[in-house]
Amino acid sequence: MKVLIVCVVPGPRSFNAAMLSTAVEALSACGHEVRVSNLVAMNFDPVCRDADFSAPQNPEHIRYDIEQRFAAENNSFSQDIAAELEKLMWCDCLILQFPLYWFSVPAILKGWIDRVFVNGIIYGGGKWYDRGGLSGKRAMLAFSTGCYPTMCGSDGINGDMDIILWPLQNGVLRFCGMQVLPPFIAWSVAYLDNPKRQTILDDYAGHLRGIETLTALPFHHRSDFGKDWRLNEGITPVAVGQMRASLKTP
Amino acid sequence: MKVLIVCVVPGPRSFNAAMLSTAVEALSACGHEVRVSNLVAMNFDPVCRDADFSAPQNPEHIRYDIEQRFAAENNSFSQDIAAELEKLMWCDCLILQFPLYWFSVPAILKGWIDRVFVNGIIYGGGKWYDRGGLSGKRAMLAFSTGCYPTMCGSDGINGDMDIILWPLQNGVLRFCGMQVLPPFIAWSVAYLDNPKRQTILDDYAGHLRGIETLTALPFHHRSDFGKDWRLNEGITPVAVGQMRASLKTP
Repeated sequence: MKVLIVCVVPGPRSFNAAMLSTAVEALSACGHEVRVSNLVAMNFDPVCRDADFSAPQNPEHIRYDIEQRFAAENNSFSQDIAAELEKLMWCDCLILQFPLYWFSVPAILKGWIDRVFVNGIIYGGGKWYDRGGLSGKRAMLAFSTGCYPTMCGSDGINGDMDIILWPLQNGVLRFCGMQVLPPFIAWSVAYLDNPKRQTILDDYAGHLRGIETLTALPFHHRSDFGKDWRLNEGITPVAVGQMRASLKTP
Repeated sequence: MKVLIVCVVPGPRSFNAAMLSTAVEALSACGHEVRVSNLVAMNFDPVCRDADFSAPQNPEHIRYDIEQRFAAENNSFSQDIAAELEKLMWCDCLILQFPLYWFSVPAILKGWIDRVFVNGIIYGGGKWYDRGGLSGKRAMLAFSTGCYPTMCGSDGINGDMDIILWPLQNGVLRFCGMQVLPPFIAWSVAYLDNPKRQTILDDYAGHLRGIETLTALPFHHRSDFGKDWRLNEGITPVAVGQMRASLKTP
């Protein structure tokens, strides 16, 4: 497979640097072709700007998503966006790797999504969920966190990890049509000694060896929803985002 | 009250520009003192960098959260962080106002959180949830979205809006101890004519008039959780993040 790793590596001695090396090595050893967007090292700019469009349709009044659609038709994205978009369309599997900041991706990675997942190619005009512009590709989150697993269980103080990840796994990856693989989570790394960290890296390598065979997480199909965008009668929720529909209020 | 609005205004003619004017006017008319961090206009840098610390403890190996704690003790944050931190500690109520990008805040606002919500002051060392560094303050999300309400109902195609907002409302605002007010959502603005947009702005002004009296959203107290960070026996989940614990598997 062609694998794109988009990652946030805070420094050369960070655990995320070790995760990246582990991934490149494990995936290459399996015969996968690997490319990396190391956002901090690239000094990637995460802010949506007028300059993202080399020939905007309406320079007096930039409406970002409308200009994205126009740039998609006219091949007029700024060079940095065009380069990332090429990698994204090239890959069969996208891995987002990062330290979890505030229950989400660090800003530099959020901005990679904001700027590279462009209207007209990745989504928009009927392209969403099953019909998203990245349909057929696989995707996976891999992240480190200071949390312990019980903090993020179904009754944990931070809330259910599936709920914490919903905006990323459903709202970004699944929204664009990708098959979302189970995430790899490096728990409470800051409190572990080196042998335990190495065990996590070994587990990560093992997880990555499954990217072709791992069963994707369950999400609903477009056809499960009616014209009002609500689950059709009789459909039992399979994903955490629609789960409350199955809670009977007393 | 002292109100800080931290906002993402994509352009002077955007709906978010109108939301900002509406808020400043409505809050001032109620006698509140208002300050604004208009992140795009400020050209705020959302990326965590070594330069965020004017006198780092360990310049050879920056560990971001550990340097935050050191800078908090030594008053050695970069000027832009120090300025935002001063505003944040000053306010009684924080409003985050933005267009929803990919089920979350735009990168520039995520970076404001990543950089300004510092370890040692806002969280860390036992400061979280009820005991967070922003305890006693109120907070509110106000955002525009292309979604229609039924898409984000409990059985909607995008998932329950309470779940979409969990990482922000619980993971950021509540995590730091704030009382989280019901969000204001400007639905499907792109598809509305001007009179309908004006109605939304009027509704927003009305919502803002309630910031002193609105009942905060329910979250669990620290004391509802045991030493393993799981809900104590017999506690019924009140927030969406722990809700799956009350789903009986058949």
